[in-house]
Formats: sequence, structure tokens, C-alpha cells
Amino acid sequence: MIEEIFKHRSIRKFSNRPIPKDILTDILEAGIRASNTGNMQIYSIIVTQDEKRKKALAACHFNQPMITQAPVLLTYCVDVRRFSRWCEIRGTKPGYNNFLWFVNGMIDSMLCSQNMVLEAEHHGLGICYLGTTVYTTEKIIEVLNLPHGVIPVTTVVMGYPDQQVELTDRLPLKAVVHFEQYNDPTDEQIEQLWAEKEASELTAKLIEDNKLPTLAHIFAERRYTLKDSVAISESYFETLKKQGFFNQ
Amino acid sequence: MIEEIFKHRSIRKFSNRPIPKDILTDILEAGIRASNTGNMQIYSIIVTQDEKRKKALAACHFNQPMITQAPVLLTYCVDVRRFSRWCEIRGTKPGYNNFLWFVNGMIDSMLCSQNMVLEAEHHGLGICYLGTTVYTTEKIIEVLNLPHGVIPVTTVVMGYPDQQVELTDRLPLKAVVHFEQYNDPTDEQIEQLWAEKEASELTAKLIEDNKLPTLAHIFAERRYTLKDSVAISESYFETLKKQGFFNQ
Repeated sequence: MIEEIFKHRSIRKFSNRPIPKDILTDILEAGIRASNTGNMQIYSIIVTQDEKRKKALAACHFNQPMITQAPVLLTYCVDVRRFSRWCEIRGTKPGYNNFLWFVNGMIDSMLCSQNMVLEAEHHGLGICYLGTTVYTTEKIIEVLNLPHGVIPVTTVVMGYPDQQVELTDRLPLKAVVHFEQYNDPTDEQIEQLWAEKEASELTAKLIEDNKLPTLAHIFAERRYTLKDSVAISESYFETLKKQGFFNQ
Repeated sequence: MIEEIFKHRSIRKFSNRPIPKDILTDILEAGIRASNTGNMQIYSIIVTQDEKRKKALAACHFNQPMITQAPVLLTYCVDVRRFSRWCEIRGTKPGYNNFLWFVNGMIDSMLCSQNMVLEAEHHGLGICYLGTTVYTTEKIIEVLNLPHGVIPVTTVVMGYPDQQVELTDRLPLKAVVHFEQYNDPTDEQIEQLWAEKEASELTAKLIEDNKLPTLAHIFAERRYTLKDSVAISESYFETLKKQGFFNQ
């Protein structure tokens, strides 16, 4: 059992202790060992440590305090630019400015990021993924000076934890694992899958605070609404085209 | 240093030794411990062990022998269906049938898969990711009976290795890591990044076998051509829409 995997918690409060350079290098080396499409490494990792730039990025992520607090911010990007330029320099025409290579690049960059997260936790560091990366992509592109052929997909904040966090609950394994073919649950089975989560004290408190009838309402009507999701979908898809992942 | 990360090799030849059930369960448990968007777990893992179904899936992956050889095949899917159905059962309207949630689901399913891969390797198993999943998505959907709201993104073959494999080379770390902002290399720097790869014996042999002038030509004109990439991009994007990730 790899301890780091089973002990993982998202950390949202960091001490001001810096990450030693050799440890950061080791974490980055862990990232590039991950499997990747055709060993083409069509991703880039932008490391932000500068205070001013951290502040500029924090503004792209709802100004959550952990972002300026953490010593390191890692922005993971799909990057077909480097490989395509190499092809061009060698006199052949690259074919990577399309949706397939966005998908391949997403897979590769996420395998890389998860390796890095586990290696960081091995060194006693804590991390949190920021889903907000796709909310404000245009602005992140500007702050990090990302050229055509490069698009951010997720961000990880990293530093030494300044909080103790309980392990988060998960749905029962059978909710997400299907043997042989997709096992579409009945309504009753779906209710069973969420039963423990819905019965928790945390849920009771959330329902009270939000003045909404169920936990599902909190997700669909507060946290991740249809309106916001449609707007973000549209803007991210536009950026995808603009950055050159839909040219062919 | 997490040993499994730095010792990772893709394995493409497997013994017929089955994976004990408790080990498979532990690997699956490792998967769901990964970070995921809003703790909504919008992914599903389809576990294929049945010989007949493995053969049907092998046909979706160029009939590579390793696919029927390996005892377990794992197809990772973005799945907004389960969560959306729960919302509907609870009387609220889910807003997850759009591009944002495809992207979120890709991130989540890939973090889950990489946890599983490392945990599997910890148990002495070997794995290989199959990029072909996005080539024949429609057929995979049919074989695995995947409903609306579910789309496969990658596949992992898993089993006990029946081969010794050397560690694969990578570009120098500086190729993929950028400090503070994107560092767009000069042509000369790009040539330096690929210099070691291009000078290798393996490359010399590939160039001879393929009768092409450079390694870049082998990628762009044999392995991953513009024509194929455009065709796959179009079919995968169509499937994305059909499965309900572009309705709003």
C-alpha cells in the first residue's frame, strides 16, 4: 500500500516555510516519469514563486488566501507548441493543433500532476487542486504569458501544511466501479449510494446554512450551477479554439 | 522518493497469472482517494476480465496482443450521469451536461487512474495506457454498454509483467518546466532539447527502418499524422456531443 495515496487530504492553509530547491526538483522529476502519449511530453508546468505573480494568479482563483500563502503554485498546461516547433524545424508538418491532442495533452498533464502531488506529499508537503483554472483561463494565459499551442487545465498550490485535515468521505467503491459493463443503478440504488453522505452531520449543517432542502440542491443551485457551468464551458471552449486546438 | 514513480515502465507483455481479488480492490480503493472536483466523483471505471469482452475491446485497440493477455482491462470514463440522476431524484436540476464537466471529469478520472497505476505497481503489477481509447470510442461505448452522460477517455491494461523493460528517456526537465512565465525556446534551444533523443541508437534504427530523414518525420508522417488526428478529433468530438457533454 502506498501510504501517500491513502493519506491524501487537500490542504488549504500553509506555513511560510519555503520548499527547498532540491525537493522541488525531485517533485518535478517525479512528474515527467509518468506515462505520456507517444513519449512526446505535450505538456508544460509553470512554476510560480514570485509574490507579485502569485497575487496576479490569486485574482484568477477567487483570491483564495491559500494561493498567496503557499510558496509554490503549479499551473499545468497542455502544450503542443514545443513538439510542433521541433517538427517544423526538422522540416515536417505537425498535425497536433486539434481536439485529439488537447485530450491527449490533458491525460498526460494530469498523470504528471498526480505523480508530483504524491511525491510532494512524500516530502511532507500538502497540496490543493484548483478547479478554477478553467474559469479564468484567458487571464491566466495573460499572467503566465502562454503562447499559441498552450492552454492551462489545472493548478496545484503546494506548501508545508499549517492545518490538520480529516480524510474526506467517498461514495462506496461500487458507485464508481462497474464489472464487465456499465451497471446503471436504479433510483433506489442511487439513494443508497448517497445515504451515508446525506446522513452526515456536515450535510445537516450545510443544509441549515444554505436554507435548501437537500445536499443535491446545494450542489446544483449554489456550488456548481447550470448557468455558471454553461458560461464557463463557452469561454473555455472559445479559449481552446483561440489557443489553436481546433484548427483542423 | 516514492520508488514506484521513478521505477515506472509501460509493460506490454503479461503472464497469465490472475490478479487476486483483494489486490484489485485495494487498487480501486487507491483510485478513489485521489482529489476530485467538489468531491462529486464524476467518473466511472469499467473493469473487464471476461475473455469474450476482452476480445471485443481488443478489436477497439488495434488487436494488440497484450490486451487479451492481461487479466484486467480498466476503461476510465467521465461520468456525469450518476451525479445528475441523484440531483434529479432529489428534485433539483443538474447542470453538468456541458464541456466544463467533460474537462473536470477528465481531470478527476486521470488523477484516479494514476493513483491506481502506482498502487498496482506497488503490488508488482505492470500497466500500459492505451491512447487508442479515443480512436474507437463509439465501439467501446457499445461493448461496455455506456449510457448517455458517460464517455471513455483512456484505458489501462494491467497484469503481472512477463518482460523486463528499460526506463524510457525523457526530454530534459527544463523542456517542460517554466519558472514564472512561459519560456519560449529559440530554434537552437529546441534542437538542444531533442539532441540526446535524436543521437540515440534507437532513433538511428527507427530512421533506417522507416526510411525517413528524421525522428520528427516518423512522428508526424507515420505515428501520429495530421490526417488521422483530424479524423479522430472529429469522431471523438461527435461522440462527446452524442453522449451529452455539449447540450448546454
